[in-house]
Amino acid sequence: MRAQIEAAAARIASHVRITPVIALRSERDVGMDVAHLKLELLQHGGSFKARGAFNRMLSAPIPVAGVIAASGGNHGVAVALAAHRLGVRSEIFVPTTTPAAKIERLKHFGGAVTQVGGRYSEAYAAMQARAQVTGATVVHAYDQSDVVTGQGTLGRELGSQLGALDAVFVAVGGGGLIAGVAGWYGGRTRVIGVEPESCATLHEALRTGEPVDVPVSGIAADSLGATRIGTLAFEIASRHVERVLLVSDEEILQARRWLWQNLRVATEPGGAAAFAALLSGRHGLTPTARTAVVVCGGNTDPTDL
Amino acid sequence: MRAQIEAAAARIASHVRITPVIALRSERDVGMDVAHLKLELLQHGGSFKARGAFNRMLSAPIPVAGVIAASGGNHGVAVALAAHRLGVRSEIFVPTTTPAAKIERLKHFGGAVTQVGGRYSEAYAAMQARAQVTGATVVHAYDQSDVVTGQGTLGRELGSQLGALDAVFVAVGGGGLIAGVAGWYGGRTRVIGVEPESCATLHEALRTGEPVDVPVSGIAADSLGATRIGTLAFEIASRHVERVLLVSDEEILQARRWLWQNLRVATEPGGAAAFAALLSGRHGLTPTARTAVVVCGGNTDPTDL
Repeated sequence: MRAQIEAAAARIASHVRITPVIALRSERDVGMDVAHLKLELLQHGGSFKARGAFNRMLSAPIPVAGVIAASGGNHGVAVALAAHRLGVRSEIFVPTTTPAAKIERLKHFGGAVTQVGGRYSEAYAAMQARAQVTGATVVHAYDQSDVVTGQGTLGRELGSQLGALDAVFVAVGGGGLIAGVAGWYGGRTRVIGVEPESCATLHEALRTGEPVDVPVSGIAADSLGATRIGTLAFEIASRHVERVLLVSDEEILQARRWLWQNLRVATEPGGAAAFAALLSGRHGLTPTARTAVVVCGGNTDPTDL
Repeated sequence: MRAQIEAAAARIASHVRITPVIALRSERDVGMDVAHLKLELLQHGGSFKARGAFNRMLSAPIPVAGVIAASGGNHGVAVALAAHRLGVRSEIFVPTTTPAAKIERLKHFGGAVTQVGGRYSEAYAAMQARAQVTGATVVHAYDQSDVVTGQGTLGRELGSQLGALDAVFVAVGGGGLIAGVAGWYGGRTRVIGVEPESCATLHEALRTGEPVDVPVSGIAADSLGATRIGTLAFEIASRHVERVLLVSDEEILQARRWLWQNLRVATEPGGAAAFAALLSGRHGLTPTARTAVVVCGGNTDPTDL
């Protein structure tokens, strides 16, 4: 998978930002000598999703009807902005639970937005029906090879910035990001998935032995609220993800608040989930372990920080 | 001055963060092929001020009465947090115009806070009177050699991160940061000061030929609203600052909004001033110039982003 990720990195290089990392040294509450944060919320569109969206759209033929996507919000923003940059049309389906901050960004980039259903999975069904009619190229939010390898460029970038690491913490929704990152590392580094207790798609799939539908709710559902882990993600995660840690909504909110109070980084709840697992101390790593935490999204209404 | 800054960097290394830079490539509105942002708002205490505060407090004897400072807010936060880390008492004087977000941070770090007068200069006078009584060590917000060299470590860090640059944009209040940065570069790189039209201390001093009192008002007055440029800063700036660009409150607000909308970086108004000068296009640099802009503070109430 490394070769595909290298190719993706070259393909998208002029369209995405190299996002910075910051080292937190012996910080109060963190419990690690050094913890690195990958500030991927500074990516175009406010989340890692631009990586996969550009890689898919630069790999697939795109008809006059353009591209179409279903999303909890961030993937839609990325597809709309990539379409804008590449000069093609975009149509985005989101559930009615998508926050106003994300709808606003979608419209900012000129995406045609349809809000339908209470969850991502319902928006996805409506998007599929529409794609049959228009013939637009579907850009899947996670379960598409070009999307997964695009997200994997984050793992490659992390490697070039930080060298060898003992563990990388990655939040999981549909699993595109963790599949890309775990695929890049291929077992060379412990990749630890983090999910809200209330959207535990990968946790349940690993427990059951196959992707299964899970209930979806809670504070981070708009970014991590896939109903079922992606097929590709499950396959890669089964081999290369060490384990999945579950965090409560309260822990996610505390982590989000910590990042704002102590670092002036404003994340959405899902963007703070991986850091919540580090703060929880339940990871079992020694304080000297070299870690990185992906802060993956910042499309938030900052008024509640 | 380089030797003192090297010494300062070694002295404060275990107390401050190496803050990241991000390259913005051919971004809409920016007009440069590449512009680097130094994300110093991610520093401890939310601004560059921790550098000078730690350097001063690790260089001077500190009596039982601890340290005392006057500040528009950010310097006070840095002094309070440095005092907290070093286990000494701190007393901070701020004007009544200091925003609630900064007062809250001051109290968070355990500083004893006195709000007095409508401007920094009045808080400073009250602080001086109090220091006479208690004998606490004064940590000046800008006009003290150890403070200036501490801020200069930002220039050194920038050099190690980015190598040679054509120009660095730095916002100016009392001038501690620009003096440190210009002192580090010593003319090797164009250092461009940026001031709000409504607090133009360095601009007026350079025009007049000496530090003079200026009127202070506007959106960024709580961080850039010194009444008069520091003596040290004026001396260094006269030799090593290429020029000062003035920006309007409207331009500052636009820059602050750009940073949030396009980069998910939440700054205070003063923290966006240097970037406002880049966005203004009035810098006269060619698009291929290698630039860095210091985003120097993030102690803001995010509800108005």
